[in-house]
Amino acid sequence: MEKSALQKARGAYQPKLPVGLQGCVKVKEGAPTQSVADQEQIKALFPNTYGMPLIEFEKGETMNNEAINIGVILSGGQAPGGHNVICGLFDGVKRLNPNSKLYGFLMGPGGLVDHNYIELTADVIDEYRNTGGFDMIGSGRTKLEKEEQFEKGLEIIRKLDIKAIVIIGGDDSNTNACVLAEYYAAKKYGVQVIGCPKTIDGDLKNEQIETSFGFDTACKTYAEVIGNIQRDANSARKYWHFIKLMGRSASHIALECALQVQPNVCIVSEEVEEKGMSLNDIVDYVAGVVAQRAADGNNFGTVLIPEGLIEFVPAIKRLIAELNDLLATPEAQAVARENQIDYVKSHLSAENLATFASLPAAVASQLALDRDPHGNVQVSLIETEKLLSEMVGNRLKAMKAEGKYVGKFSPLHHFFGYEGRCAAPSNYDADYCYALGVSASMLMANGKTGYMAIVKNTTAPAAEWVAGGVPITMMMNMERRNGEMKPVIKKALVQLDGAPFKKFAENREKWARETCYVYPGPIQYWGPTEVCDQTTKTLALEQGK
Amino acid sequence: MEKSALQKARGAYQPKLPVGLQGCVKVKEGAPTQSVADQEQIKALFPNTYGMPLIEFEKGETMNNEAINIGVILSGGQAPGGHNVICGLFDGVKRLNPNSKLYGFLMGPGGLVDHNYIELTADVIDEYRNTGGFDMIGSGRTKLEKEEQFEKGLEIIRKLDIKAIVIIGGDDSNTNACVLAEYYAAKKYGVQVIGCPKTIDGDLKNEQIETSFGFDTACKTYAEVIGNIQRDANSARKYWHFIKLMGRSASHIALECALQVQPNVCIVSEEVEEKGMSLNDIVDYVAGVVAQRAADGNNFGTVLIPEGLIEFVPAIKRLIAELNDLLATPEAQAVARENQIDYVKSHLSAENLATFASLPAAVASQLALDRDPHGNVQVSLIETEKLLSEMVGNRLKAMKAEGKYVGKFSPLHHFFGYEGRCAAPSNYDADYCYALGVSASMLMANGKTGYMAIVKNTTAPAAEWVAGGVPITMMMNMERRNGEMKPVIKKALVQLDGAPFKKFAENREKWARETCYVYPGPIQYWGPTEVCDQTTKTLALEQGK
Repeated sequence: MEKSALQKARGAYQPKLPVGLQGCVKVKEGAPTQSVADQEQIKALFPNTYGMPLIEFEKGETMNNEAINIGVILSGGQAPGGHNVICGLFDGVKRLNPNSKLYGFLMGPGGLVDHNYIELTADVIDEYRNTGGFDMIGSGRTKLEKEEQFEKGLEIIRKLDIKAIVIIGGDDSNTNACVLAEYYAAKKYGVQVIGCPKTIDGDLKNEQIETSFGFDTACKTYAEVIGNIQRDANSARKYWHFIKLMGRSASHIALECALQVQPNVCIVSEEVEEKGMSLNDIVDYVAGVVAQRAADGNNFGTVLIPEGLIEFVPAIKRLIAELNDLLATPEAQAVARENQIDYVKSHLSAENLATFASLPAAVASQLALDRDPHGNVQVSLIETEKLLSEMVGNRLKAMKAEGKYVGKFSPLHHFFGYEGRCAAPSNYDADYCYALGVSASMLMANGKTGYMAIVKNTTAPAAEWVAGGVPITMMMNMERRNGEMKPVIKKALVQLDGAPFKKFAENREKWARETCYVYPGPIQYWGPTEVCDQTTKTLALEQGK
Repeated sequence: MEKSALQKARGAYQPKLPVGLQGCVKVKEGAPTQSVADQEQIKALFPNTYGMPLIEFEKGETMNNEAINIGVILSGGQAPGGHNVICGLFDGVKRLNPNSKLYGFLMGPGGLVDHNYIELTADVIDEYRNTGGFDMIGSGRTKLEKEEQFEKGLEIIRKLDIKAIVIIGGDDSNTNACVLAEYYAAKKYGVQVIGCPKTIDGDLKNEQIETSFGFDTACKTYAEVIGNIQRDANSARKYWHFIKLMGRSASHIALECALQVQPNVCIVSEEVEEKGMSLNDIVDYVAGVVAQRAADGNNFGTVLIPEGLIEFVPAIKRLIAELNDLLATPEAQAVARENQIDYVKSHLSAENLATFASLPAAVASQLALDRDPHGNVQVSLIETEKLLSEMVGNRLKAMKAEGKYVGKFSPLHHFFGYEGRCAAPSNYDADYCYALGVSASMLMANGKTGYMAIVKNTTAPAAEWVAGGVPITMMMNMERRNGEMKPVIKKALVQLDGAPFKKFAENREKWARETCYVYPGPIQYWGPTEVCDQTTKTLALEQGK
């Protein structure tokens, strides 16, 4: 494997560890815990893993030094730092006993079920220290939900004499980790399951989890290129850049990037939903900013758009729901493709028809015509950044005709997602992930199951971070999923009364009118600590820093 | 102006200077020069600026210490390091005499003609040290070509008592700088004109100019995100990423990125033209690589595509030429829009009709329908990356039907350009640009005109770099432009017998089949010198390093 100069130099980086995870580690247990809501139901569903105490690791005198074999699984989308979690796990169990073994299940949870795995030896591990990507063992989206999967997994667990499984994933994967932990505990199989909080989307966080890993690096990578685009916009002074950012269900990425780069506009899906805004309301707002800047002689700017925006617009949500029902009928499916738009128009309710009519023709026909294999509207195919800029352009034409806009509007479009999911982890993510891995190894060594590894106080220097574990049931509530009530980890959306959004909301008028661009530049690994070791703005604001 | 932590820390960076530009500077003149071709014609057109010697700066004892006022102009597209050229100019003339003044003409060459300028004082300069963008004074695309522009410019030059103008631009802007130098020399106005080699495209280079500034930083920025995408491709193992890169007339950027990241496919426009490849030939090649990788179980990969590709495909070039002629006639312009495609089909020559028919419907209709204000086909609107992936997808379907392809083909698309043009300059570009600026100031102090500032030996440590000047006429030849023969600086396309392309060609089969991705990571400003101070692969290979 040929490596870049940075890869080589970065390979030698030794992640900083909290004092509590250095040397011998002692477990400090807190009081019993409760789930955040629906306590009776969650308790009934998780009799063996409910109510366990919070755990904190402290510097100790002695340690359980038995060799243990553990397995690790990467679940879902890539996030920077995943490899370092595995490196931390490896170093953690080897520190306990050099005869411990680490197995990696390949291409996600499916690897456990299908018995695809490799042993992760020092040679393998050392190739991947401080690297981005999930290519060490691959990832996958198979959901571990069924007993037959759990039993199939047990076969290979027994064969490899594995004591504990670590599942590195987002909210759903960690929910499933807890279901698996409960199942193995109920069956008294003696197999522990530990989770790790991963997702660039930043929507797996709560009282116990300060942030999900990868959010820091991904946002900094996006902010780098958005900053560069803003500098370009401010130099060329003739383009409006519409920039869509990954994140289907929460707008944390867009908001964090906005806090870092101070764009002219950032749409936050949660606010759109909360205020019941229509697409036309959003278009009005953006067109208003464009017109105001044009009046000042500034025919350029930047607009950040969260990937999931369209699904947060209540009117569009209702339209999509009706379309899904409408087009699922045998009658609708018998309509010839060329007549389908007319069919849709003649059958939609008046309100949804008005929404449908307000969309650009290409988007409307896509909504009416393109279905996924389950017959559903394919919202993810809609290029929201182009949809929005087209509607803004049309609005500006109308405003021009009314004499309310003088200027030129030349939009350009970008979508950033794949550019950041596998970036090499920032110092923060490299340290945080490594500590999560070591923390997970200590949870396993101490016989814990149904826990997620956590590291807190991460706005302080790394030595002062506090590692430990949180019972996964503690973060659960009951939610309707596919028509059924299920126990799930509560997803963290952007809080409109939270410090990050408030900081944005206080400044956005100024940022819209004036040109207040900040240029974060590329992630730095060496150099001044204020450059290399800063957290996200979101985390700093949430922690009152 | 709020600044990021990196901006603040980077503001303090003192660019490294060649020994020859430190302290007092002595001029060493070489033998008289000749243009690279068409000597008689160039000499006749530039009687006052032809044949001048090459100049090299050496450490001297004394210096001309008169105060001089100079003006600077940024011309054309942004390139990282432009601000540092201006900072170098400023420090250079202030070192000569603190009473020297630097004026910046605003928004490009138009600022000289229209008398829009600001004085660049230390306060302004210090805000922009080592920053990306051209926002200090803006840039523009006005061409300085006409005597009335030259005379209009002279008015403000006289008013501000400016002795010399520095034009920072690409090949055309430097050609125009030389025309202006010749004009002022012929008129004995006593106003000098100096050029500086700028363009991220990398196509302004020759025996004297090792590289144009900005190429280094822009390519490294693109390579960072392409590397991240490759790591994602190799982790998710289910997408083919089609990545278009800026660069209309030359493929240096795509080739340099390929050398840095080792993608599965990189198309080089110059090779396409040289070999007379059709679009179908390119599609065959890419589809072949996809099929071969699929046979190995690898349904993922990366394809780099230079922005200007389509104009290098000889068949498309001929089609566009005929379309431009065909649709310019009054008869064609009278045809209703809905009948235009039929009109085109019934009037094209057989060969061009075949090419037209081979294009996806959307692209064909765009070629036939969308014209620029001059009535020309708008090639730049074509999304080459989508065109190519669509054609590859169709080819793969046909191959699947024939049993020649087993696999899944899920393409994703990216275009990188604006992400890199205004990135903060790498150490290389920061040093190179600063040295170019100081070099330009010394050319001015020594009464030179019609020169371009140059810095050579830049693969060595910066102290050993050699600064000087090259007569612009030396790089000229006669070329047909808009139907007229004109003296222009020869554009440097990718040489198929040059070391960079040969290195690529030797490896591409292996890179196509195997997964040899390299992940360059973000530009680093601090840290090990092998990480922070390396040049582009192109430059290193061209210099035999």
